[in-house]
Amino acid sequence: MNSGAMLLLRRCRGLTLLSTRRLPVAPAVASCAVRLRSSSAEDQGSYQRAHRPGWRHAVAGLLAGTGAVLAYGLHQHKAEQEAAYPIFSQEEVTSHRSLQDGVWVTYKGGVYDITEFVAMHPGGDKILLAAGGALEPFWALYAVHNQEHVLEMLSEYKVGELNAEDLKKQKTMQTLDPYSSDPERHPVLRINNLKPFNAEPPPEILSDSFITPSAFFFKRNHLPVPQVDPATYLLQVEGLPGGLLTLSLEELKTRFPKHTVTATLQCAGNRRSEMNAVKQVKGLNWGIAAISNATWSGARLRDVLLAAGYGPDVARRAGHVQFEGLDKDVTGTTYGASIPLNKAVSEEGDVLLAYEMNGADLPADHGYPVRVVVPGVVGARNVKWLGKIIVSADESSSHWQQNDYKGFSPGTDWDTVNFKSAPAIQELPVQSAITAPADGAVVDRSSEELTVKGYAWSGGGREVVRVDVSLDGGKTWQVAQIRSSEKGQAPEGTPPTGRAWAWKLWEITAPLPPGAKELKIVCKAVDNSYNMQPDTVAPIWNLRGVLSNAWHRVNVKIREDEREE
Amino acid sequence: MNSGAMLLLRRCRGLTLLSTRRLPVAPAVASCAVRLRSSSAEDQGSYQRAHRPGWRHAVAGLLAGTGAVLAYGLHQHKAEQEAAYPIFSQEEVTSHRSLQDGVWVTYKGGVYDITEFVAMHPGGDKILLAAGGALEPFWALYAVHNQEHVLEMLSEYKVGELNAEDLKKQKTMQTLDPYSSDPERHPVLRINNLKPFNAEPPPEILSDSFITPSAFFFKRNHLPVPQVDPATYLLQVEGLPGGLLTLSLEELKTRFPKHTVTATLQCAGNRRSEMNAVKQVKGLNWGIAAISNATWSGARLRDVLLAAGYGPDVARRAGHVQFEGLDKDVTGTTYGASIPLNKAVSEEGDVLLAYEMNGADLPADHGYPVRVVVPGVVGARNVKWLGKIIVSADESSSHWQQNDYKGFSPGTDWDTVNFKSAPAIQELPVQSAITAPADGAVVDRSSEELTVKGYAWSGGGREVVRVDVSLDGGKTWQVAQIRSSEKGQAPEGTPPTGRAWAWKLWEITAPLPPGAKELKIVCKAVDNSYNMQPDTVAPIWNLRGVLSNAWHRVNVKIREDEREE
Repeated sequence: MNSGAMLLLRRCRGLTLLSTRRLPVAPAVASCAVRLRSSSAEDQGSYQRAHRPGWRHAVAGLLAGTGAVLAYGLHQHKAEQEAAYPIFSQEEVTSHRSLQDGVWVTYKGGVYDITEFVAMHPGGDKILLAAGGALEPFWALYAVHNQEHVLEMLSEYKVGELNAEDLKKQKTMQTLDPYSSDPERHPVLRINNLKPFNAEPPPEILSDSFITPSAFFFKRNHLPVPQVDPATYLLQVEGLPGGLLTLSLEELKTRFPKHTVTATLQCAGNRRSEMNAVKQVKGLNWGIAAISNATWSGARLRDVLLAAGYGPDVARRAGHVQFEGLDKDVTGTTYGASIPLNKAVSEEGDVLLAYEMNGADLPADHGYPVRVVVPGVVGARNVKWLGKIIVSADESSSHWQQNDYKGFSPGTDWDTVNFKSAPAIQELPVQSAITAPADGAVVDRSSEELTVKGYAWSGGGREVVRVDVSLDGGKTWQVAQIRSSEKGQAPEGTPPTGRAWAWKLWEITAPLPPGAKELKIVCKAVDNSYNMQPDTVAPIWNLRGVLSNAWHRVNVKIREDEREE
Repeated sequence: MNSGAMLLLRRCRGLTLLSTRRLPVAPAVASCAVRLRSSSAEDQGSYQRAHRPGWRHAVAGLLAGTGAVLAYGLHQHKAEQEAAYPIFSQEEVTSHRSLQDGVWVTYKGGVYDITEFVAMHPGGDKILLAAGGALEPFWALYAVHNQEHVLEMLSEYKVGELNAEDLKKQKTMQTLDPYSSDPERHPVLRINNLKPFNAEPPPEILSDSFITPSAFFFKRNHLPVPQVDPATYLLQVEGLPGGLLTLSLEELKTRFPKHTVTATLQCAGNRRSEMNAVKQVKGLNWGIAAISNATWSGARLRDVLLAAGYGPDVARRAGHVQFEGLDKDVTGTTYGASIPLNKAVSEEGDVLLAYEMNGADLPADHGYPVRVVVPGVVGARNVKWLGKIIVSADESSSHWQQNDYKGFSPGTDWDTVNFKSAPAIQELPVQSAITAPADGAVVDRSSEELTVKGYAWSGGGREVVRVDVSLDGGKTWQVAQIRSSEKGQAPEGTPPTGRAWAWKLWEITAPLPPGAKELKIVCKAVDNSYNMQPDTVAPIWNLRGVLSNAWHRVNVKIREDEREE
């Protein structure tokens, strides 16, 4: 097992107990239900920095798999035992799913007793989710496991072989690719991860239109896209005095007024690649386009909660509204998140149970048939394929709410991080980026001037009021032209205070400075709380690579035409 | 007239029309009703940078008063005409108060026809406020005019002498110092300006207590402190369906529930001195202590507005709640500001009409008997000595709302600034500063460790969730301990989302790094929208020196005791 997998396991801490409580352990046999494709090679560095003396150090030596001697030793060990392995039935394997009874798993017909590893596991007992079953369904979801180091690690714990009949049964179950029903996507998208699907449009397309066409809207799935039949779809609303409210799609559309909001969604990891360039972080290597703007229509969450019995008395005992998606991992754990109750019920919060995006049914990748749209709040809380709403005293207990989308100090690493010490990301900070020209572009001197384009947005409904652009790395600044509608259309006018949910597109055309051979283009936005973007990435670096909103920088070369001819 | 006064006049643009409409011009004869004591010497540099070729250049040459030749010429001119001046009555002077009739003013018995200067005045017709009357009452308010350059400038326009009887009447009126009834203040306060009174506590006192004692709470007055008789005090509420509502102090206290809020107030100019150090700005040279935290009690503005007939229909036509103070300049213009209606009426906005501060009647300097407390919003909107509340479709038309407390790009100067292009500051950005040790302090190596203390706060009710401290100029960071109550008392618990109105005090004790001779201490705070402070001052510099919230930096020397002995 390499350091990436090691970190994966550590990250999974906290999810275990919740999941095991309500899910049958077999045949669900994933050891971790979080995405982590990009966490293999990138994590090696940060892991090596992070590891500490003591037992972790010992495990690290064992797990890192980089020592040739150790690897050789494992191979020997395997070769010696190969012939002598006893045969077990699935039933026997399944009987080993606790520390008391031992923790067994199967992989490609091999049976492994990983009891000893559980105790060494930095992520605690999360690993017990896999107990008693096959690893393959999980590894099909998360490709990071399909690596030699992981297999070497596993081989050490081999205790037997699965009998032929049970192996055949397993294989039949495992041929199903959980992503086989994922929709087709536009080929222009830049794919960061295929399964689950994560992709962003080219930046220059992003600033072409104020409303991002749905096909180009960035996709950020945590799990396979569920296939939902609109005829049988039911949305459940729990935790209110009216008892359980169940709504069909038709009821959602007809019982509540249709409300339309133009809102920008941004992934917490947008611009993570710039943090990665400073020091490796954990997560998909997003560029600057994990942000898009669309028009959303649906019922207001507020109206639905009122219909389900929400009143002032509820506000006194509840503080959060949890959402569960219909997208599930192999253990049956659904994607989940929550938002503060006051955002959910505020007349000015504009939280939607959206069934339309840009005037059409929600596309499959964006949550068909119903998703939550929480304007001003990080993408991760805008739960897609919405199955359940729970009004609660507590935040969502999901991994993504508790142990993932949070920000930390640059001095915090995976050994020192305490996820309880930071609030779940809700409103995002002020953001802007340059969509054109691209970094490294070459401009001919003969063109005399340069047009710089980009986007700017802030969380919490805070309107962007100014974008400053510098061509000299931040020494001098000019104010960009801002627009809040499609080019050529009248601007929509100033949104009410605190309800500026849509981004601004901006551009500035400036003469090429005489004599300059290179332009260091920088942008920074200011919102109406006068929050500004920090100057540099390193001081806001954090181990998950979220909230990357330092000044965006693009360097452009000027080619002197005379010399070129 | 020096460049400071020149800038003053320019700054006054926009206030004129509003003030002249409702006020008699005579005997009110101020040419500008904004504070500007600190705008003399400091402005010279910025003005010289800002001035442009053309007519302004010509005026600058005339007004700057630095040319000895020009000064000599003016003296000659004055000497030649002294004997021949005609005598005018006040009535004649008063008849010259328009461009058509000529613009005359008096000063120490001299009569001046400044009609020609009005046309050259960069600040436009603001100067007409002074038309027909004496300059002294205004100059008593704003000491910047009592300078030789200003007198030389004026002398050029002398046309006559006021008759003896009218001069005597003027003098009788002018002996009153409008600041003579200002209250006593604590001697520990560091005075930035005496009239009007502006002062801040020493930083180390600030972080001594979570609740700032009222005597130490920073004072920021724009005008003389009005003396208000609580027995006859009346608060007027206008612009609601119920018609004019008038409330006595007793009614305010008894008709509405008493609501208590702990809220930090911060002046927009807090930490302006750091911007001044980059490039001169306009305004009082505040250190880091134009911020304090108190407990406020009073009626909720929401409750008073509801009593005056506020309802959803009002929200459709009105967008702002204006406040007028009882503090007035010599023209009768009161201090004024406004806040968005949704903040004023929100159940979660916690806007108070406060009559108590820290459990006692409001002190005179803090608005006795009633002030507005707008938690999360810049000090300037927390109108003191509250006289009138107006629910309106428009923002306050006051100078301070329209042409003063706004932020601009670092590239914007006094020649290019368009005050309409920026929103009035309401919510403030995230802020923090180091209150101890002081910059330049010396620490003995034998003390082995160092404790760093400070405050952190963010506008809009966004809770500070983390403070990062660096001892090496920002290369590495540690997380400070945060507290939200008096030392030794139990913390008050997490405030509801979006209602974190009080600051956090923080501290961190760290070992002195071996070998280090100097510590470059830096702090930066993060709020729950994960907004962060910008790294450096220059890129957020603005011509008014507001919103100064870059990382705070303090350098400390380490003294090696061995060598000293």
